[in-house]
This record gives sequence, structure tokens and C-alpha cells, in this order.
Amino acid sequence: MKVYEQKIAPNARRVRIFLAEKGVLDQVEFVQLDLKAGDNITREFKQKNFLGKIPVMELDDGTEISESVAICRYFEALYPEHPLMGRTPKAQANVEMWQRRCEIYFMNMIGMGFQHTSGFFADRMTPVKEWGALCVEEVSKFLKELEKHLSVTEFIAGDEFSIADITAFVSIDFAKVVGVRRDDTMPNINRWYAQINERDSAKA
Amino acid sequence: MKVYEQKIAPNARRVRIFLAEKGVLDQVEFVQLDLKAGDNITREFKQKNFLGKIPVMELDDGTEISESVAICRYFEALYPEHPLMGRTPKAQANVEMWQRRCEIYFMNMIGMGFQHTSGFFADRMTPVKEWGALCVEEVSKFLKELEKHLSVTEFIAGDEFSIADITAFVSIDFAKVVGVRRDDTMPNINRWYAQINERDSAKA
Repeated sequence: MKVYEQKIAPNARRVRIFLAEKGVLDQVEFVQLDLKAGDNITREFKQKNFLGKIPVMELDDGTEISESVAICRYFEALYPEHPLMGRTPKAQANVEMWQRRCEIYFMNMIGMGFQHTSGFFADRMTPVKEWGALCVEEVSKFLKELEKHLSVTEFIAGDEFSIADITAFVSIDFAKVVGVRRDDTMPNINRWYAQINERDSAKA
Repeated sequence: MKVYEQKIAPNARRVRIFLAEKGVLDQVEFVQLDLKAGDNITREFKQKNFLGKIPVMELDDGTEISESVAICRYFEALYPEHPLMGRTPKAQANVEMWQRRCEIYFMNMIGMGFQHTSGFFADRMTPVKEWGALCVEEVSKFLKELEKHLSVTEFIAGDEFSIADITAFVSIDFAKVVGVRRDDTMPNINRWYAQINERDSAKA
């Protein structure tokens, strides 16, 4: 089984951490692409994912799965022991809610904030600076909400480590590209971040 | 159990269709909000979902679950028979991939396209017309990809009806608000749309 990725990309990182948590990281052959050089928007790569996004998982039977959370879902279904997407129906819903909140209103806002303010991918998209700046404002707001939330919960989605922690953790590091950083006014985020950072998977 | 929603909102509609498919629509008490009037951004409602988004499900024990797909996930886990999120690990990954594609690159682009070009919610967000116009272009592009995809598959995520069909179906109707419509050049989408539209759940 192969995963096409660029190791430094935040979406690639969250899949690697998920696989490390599942103990299956060494079952996967990682193929590195250079996104800035456009390896992901070639005709050949778009046959794997017409959207030209990474990571893409390729199973031995030729099945191609893109979208980070879809790749994670495959391994969650295959190895349901030590769940990272919730055990009970209520826990599954809660994890899905928080994973999505951290992704849609935090990670994706960082991504758009970066792309639209920096013009990093101006060769393949139209950066709109005003929109990028608004996204960065949303990133700061979400971080404050996360600080409040982590004052009443150990992990992002309750008492157990989950994919929501992975998305939030990767996003906190990613947020540096738009100049948003956790600081001393965020003791709960700092406590939680240190805890996640100590896990072996954080280095994946 | 309650669901706070506005019946005409696309995210509300996809949850209703999902619940109808699961046969549990009548177990839920729906509470209508007026989004334009700001019922969803009151201090009181933000205690249910700090992001001020609908739908929000409230269980009898007080648990609040927001995010449409998280609400669907709860019912999928509770009633795994007649799965709408895939049966096998590979099918689950494929459904998740297509649900996300239809949501992120189609439904959400329609939403942003509408909000940023129309200024419908200008009382609570800053519309950026240039960004809105770019989103609408993406909506048209995605529709063309969907037409190609539906030439080789019966449903969006393979041989079985799934949540990906629900997201795509609701989005096709929603796309009218940005002036994007299916037409005679899209026989595969039209065949598929008619098929989904005939299901009892489409009226939910």
C-alpha cells in the first residue's frame, strides 16, 4: 500500500500521526511529491485524485482513496481496537463534531489564510488578500474558543485521545505560517499541547 | 430528542433526508430558527454551538451535537443496518472521500459563493465579492467533474446509495442560488438526480 504525500504538509502529517497511533505506519510506502513544483497537479497525478490534493492512498488492488479523514476512516474500520473516532454512538458523534470544527474553522482557515495572503500557489489559483486576512482573524478566534474548551476537557473530544486531537495539534503548528501562535495566556492549550507532543506518534 | 434547524437551509435538509432514510425522522422534534433574523447567533443559541451554526441536535440527556455529518454519524452508529456511510472498510473510506469532496468542493463553495456575492449575511460577516466569484467558478467546475464521475458509477460512492448522494443532491438544488444549474449537457447527472429525487426521503 502506498501513500502519496509531501511530508511537511499538514494533511500528510495528520494521516501519519493517525497511522502511527494505529501501529501501521511501517505497512505503508510513502511516495514524496513536491507540491510547490506542481507534482500534484500533473495529468498523471490527477488520475489518482482529480482535485490534485494530497495525501492519496493507493491500495494494492488499485483503489485510490484521497481526503485525509477518508484514509484515516479506512484504518479505523480495519483496526477498530484502540478507536480514534469514538467508541459509542455518542462518542463517535462527538469526535466527528470536534474533528470537523478543528478542520473547517481552524485548519482550513489557516490553509486559506496562508494561500491567500502569501500568494504561495499564485501559479495555480487567484489569491484574494482581503479574504486571506479575514481567514487569519478566524484562526485567532478559534484558538481562543479552544482555550476555553480545554479548560473543561482533557482531550479535544472528551476523556480519550482522538482524531480531533490530531487535527487540532497539527493545526496549532501549522498556524505559525499565518503568524498565529499559542502563548502564555493559553494555559489549557499549553497543557494539552505538551501532552499530545509527548506521544510517540507526534514525531511520525 | 430535538434538532434546531431552519428547514430550508441545505445542511438542515441533508440531515432530514438522512434521518428519513434511517426511518427515524418522526423520533425527532424539530425546532425552527430564523437565520436571517439572527436566531442562531444569540447568546443563548451559542451556548448550544459556539459557532452559531445549525443544525444542532440535543439529546434527552442534554448532549449537544452540531455539524450535520456528526449528527448523521450518531444515527449511523445507532442503526448500522441499511448503512449510509459504507459497509466494509474500503466502502467506508470511499463514501467518506466522496461525501467530503461533495461537501468541501461543492456545497461549501456554493455557500461561500452565495454569502460573498450576495451579502446576505453582511450584518455578521464581511463579504468579499472577488472571493465569492471564484467560489462560483469552482462550483461549475465540480459539476462537470461530477458529470464525468456519474458516467461510470450508479451512485456517487459506488453501487449503493450513501450520504455522499445526499450531500450532492442537496447541493445541486442549493447551487441555483449562485446561478449554477444542471442542464441537457449533463445526462448522467440528470439520470442520477431523477433517481434520488424519486426516493421518499427526498421530500423530507
